[in-house]
Amino acid sequence: MNYDQIMQLALERGFYFPSCEIYADAQAGFWEYGPSGVSMKNKFIELWRRELVRRDKMWEIDGSQIMSQSVFVASGHLSSFADPIVACQKCKSIFRVDKMITEITSIVLPESADLSEFDKVISEKKIVCPRCKGQFDNAHKFNMMFKVGIGPESEPAYLRPETCQSIFVDFPRLYKTMRGKLPIGVAQIGKSFRNEISPRQSLLRLREFYQAEIEVFCNPNKLDNLEKFSEVENTELRIMVGDDIKAMTCKQALESGILPNKLVAYYLALLIEFYQKTGIDVTKSRFRKLGDKEKAFYASVAFDFEVETTIGWLELVACNYRSDYDLKSHGNVSKEKFEVLDDEVKVLPHIFELSMGIDRSLYTILEHSFREDKENERIVLSLKPYLAPVHVGVLSLMKKDGLAEKTEEIFSTLQRKCDAFLDHSGAIGRRYRRLDEVGAPFAITVDHQTLEDQTVTIRARDSMSQERIKISDLDLHLAKSIAFP
Amino acid sequence: MNYDQIMQLALERGFYFPSCEIYADAQAGFWEYGPSGVSMKNKFIELWRRELVRRDKMWEIDGSQIMSQSVFVASGHLSSFADPIVACQKCKSIFRVDKMITEITSIVLPESADLSEFDKVISEKKIVCPRCKGQFDNAHKFNMMFKVGIGPESEPAYLRPETCQSIFVDFPRLYKTMRGKLPIGVAQIGKSFRNEISPRQSLLRLREFYQAEIEVFCNPNKLDNLEKFSEVENTELRIMVGDDIKAMTCKQALESGILPNKLVAYYLALLIEFYQKTGIDVTKSRFRKLGDKEKAFYASVAFDFEVETTIGWLELVACNYRSDYDLKSHGNVSKEKFEVLDDEVKVLPHIFELSMGIDRSLYTILEHSFREDKENERIVLSLKPYLAPVHVGVLSLMKKDGLAEKTEEIFSTLQRKCDAFLDHSGAIGRRYRRLDEVGAPFAITVDHQTLEDQTVTIRARDSMSQERIKISDLDLHLAKSIAFP
Repeated sequence: MNYDQIMQLALERGFYFPSCEIYADAQAGFWEYGPSGVSMKNKFIELWRRELVRRDKMWEIDGSQIMSQSVFVASGHLSSFADPIVACQKCKSIFRVDKMITEITSIVLPESADLSEFDKVISEKKIVCPRCKGQFDNAHKFNMMFKVGIGPESEPAYLRPETCQSIFVDFPRLYKTMRGKLPIGVAQIGKSFRNEISPRQSLLRLREFYQAEIEVFCNPNKLDNLEKFSEVENTELRIMVGDDIKAMTCKQALESGILPNKLVAYYLALLIEFYQKTGIDVTKSRFRKLGDKEKAFYASVAFDFEVETTIGWLELVACNYRSDYDLKSHGNVSKEKFEVLDDEVKVLPHIFELSMGIDRSLYTILEHSFREDKENERIVLSLKPYLAPVHVGVLSLMKKDGLAEKTEEIFSTLQRKCDAFLDHSGAIGRRYRRLDEVGAPFAITVDHQTLEDQTVTIRARDSMSQERIKISDLDLHLAKSIAFP
Repeated sequence: MNYDQIMQLALERGFYFPSCEIYADAQAGFWEYGPSGVSMKNKFIELWRRELVRRDKMWEIDGSQIMSQSVFVASGHLSSFADPIVACQKCKSIFRVDKMITEITSIVLPESADLSEFDKVISEKKIVCPRCKGQFDNAHKFNMMFKVGIGPESEPAYLRPETCQSIFVDFPRLYKTMRGKLPIGVAQIGKSFRNEISPRQSLLRLREFYQAEIEVFCNPNKLDNLEKFSEVENTELRIMVGDDIKAMTCKQALESGILPNKLVAYYLALLIEFYQKTGIDVTKSRFRKLGDKEKAFYASVAFDFEVETTIGWLELVACNYRSDYDLKSHGNVSKEKFEVLDDEVKVLPHIFELSMGIDRSLYTILEHSFREDKENERIVLSLKPYLAPVHVGVLSLMKKDGLAEKTEEIFSTLQRKCDAFLDHSGAIGRRYRRLDEVGAPFAITVDHQTLEDQTVTIRARDSMSQERIKISDLDLHLAKSIAFP
């Protein structure tokens, strides 16, 4: 199984496909979710809400994607959210300079290196344009935010490069109107936008993408004062220690100093408990602490949650201790007060964030659920039933003799309770295969016996086993099988 | 009750509030949903999915918001989606010229009038800048799409001004991979963007807003060949006939020629059945057929679904028969084939759309649910229980004597089944008032008797009646009361 097979399945079964694909000026890095993708994404989000937002009594907001320039002056994105690039004088091709240098010379320079360092290597190693052998201009910074002009005066504003900026800016109002008490998590699902120089691999590096971000506002003096930690102290995490991945409980990670405090440990535990329920194989996961050169500019401590896939370790969640970086900056630029009272003491909250990539998570779920069942010549997407785009296929063995009508009658009832898919046409085996490929956990078939004794066959996706069941028992059988855990 | 009261409630109870409000360069027309708003919006969308998408077996997609320039060359937005404006030579203020002329002179010119007509009136009536008495430049067109540059080369692209363009462009792939058959509805929830010159009234005229659009692809020769029409033939619609609103069944509207065909009548019926369930008072609604000057440039027949509010009739849904305008244009520009086989005959589908504004719909629900209960000195949001941001408040009469712990135990169980809100602090009456104001249909209170006999009081929002109920019966009682219809 590999990336290309997932891609093919995604295209053929309506999970995702390129945006504006009928046009020659379609841009890389923009993708659409088809019907199967939307259905699975909605269920993934519902699981996220259950396991994180509701479980931890967080507030969920939904903010504007276009935000004022001042926001990004304060956040540092206007000055720091830029990649180093270099342009060919002759053919005008543009390259991400650090990556090009590494590819051609194997010299590794961090993307944050001084621009003159890139120019120096290009000159010393006599690097020319890989496309036309032309000379390069000096390296410069390319800001990855998309700029938009508001109103006829074209006031500068930006598409947010991370959803969390809405959460920071809204915090004073939220804390007051919602009667907050630290620590409090504020969550948001939404689109973010990054003008990547080299978007690639469908959902893995997009210019427009979905994030599910959680910002936990906390009192920096009380990071180990967290009663609810006891709920997760035995939850097992896999953490990089040196070059090895070690499995350990939250409690062990804390006691050995691998995790800095109870608050961080608690939220990493919620995260892993969530991902376990998505069907991702968490024995192929790790939390990896980032070095100073790797961290985002706003993070003081950062762990990436990574999962092993056929194309390597993939970062699904950035877990950043952003300290008071954001609230202090927004306070300075806006003059708004961000301090709150915590047990009568004024405090500027610190922030720990779980910044999840939804698109990448969905890709990983697809990959970890993908099975080639060679014996039965089929491909099966063994999705958790509660994440499956279709819960149950409803098939007529044939359309005649009143079977079509009976099938539609059953479909109408089921459709109100779950995601049912009606299918009359084609060989029954082929219809089963298609349902296997969208991960439908069940298929019901209406045959002549149905008309006699009000039973149908129900087929299980993974085992392919079939049993007869009364129509009147279908509701309960399905309700139990597809319920969220 | 008026607009300002709704605004105040929205701000104080976490429904919505201005984006980037802490900054001086915050732009008008951008708003955020707070926790109550997000919860209500999610439920509204779930109802929409149930009543339209699932009921009619539509496909739902989720496409990119940034789309290529060619899309809007084909759609006509690049040339036609523009407002006429005029700038003051002295103070540089910019005005929507048609509206300014009407305000100053009462002369009504359509926004689509020739630019020279505006200049002529300005000159003849000696209109000067209302702000500084300066002279005006000639009128010109201001395109309302937000332009963005993709990649370091800054290739032109646009934030979509309507979600449906994704649906049109994706149609060839969808029809093939999802094995379509006409008529088929394709639905999408998502953000659209319009660079309004004068955004106003919070959710009512936004620059970034949510649409729920449905595009029904149909065979223009079979618009009256629709079996499922019988399901809705007796559904009552309110339609403008001349200057009057007449209530009539779908069947009557069709037979009298007020609605053009069964397909249009069927979808208008689905729409009204949906809105009935949102709690909007549909006796204050009307379908209004638009005149040629009012219609969007792509519509051959158009009905607005409008609802009466304290600020006048509000358009919630544009119902446009777009004919083959979109597919023909996209076919011409892209060279992609948009014809499909319908019963062995090749046909270019026509499109009927239901283009719903989510933000405006939510505003209208709030307004139609808002009650001032003067007798009891309270404000009540009588939302349908299945749309309420909070289903049930869980309150402790006091925190001591173990009541807090018992309350939290009940809360934990309920939280898994519904949106519960835990509240320990403040006078019980004030806590009830706050729950009334977010529209929570129920409040449960834990008191000393609870510890003795495992019962709680349950208070109904609208009647304020209270009864004692066993804790073990809570689940079922709530499940029944908050279920979608």
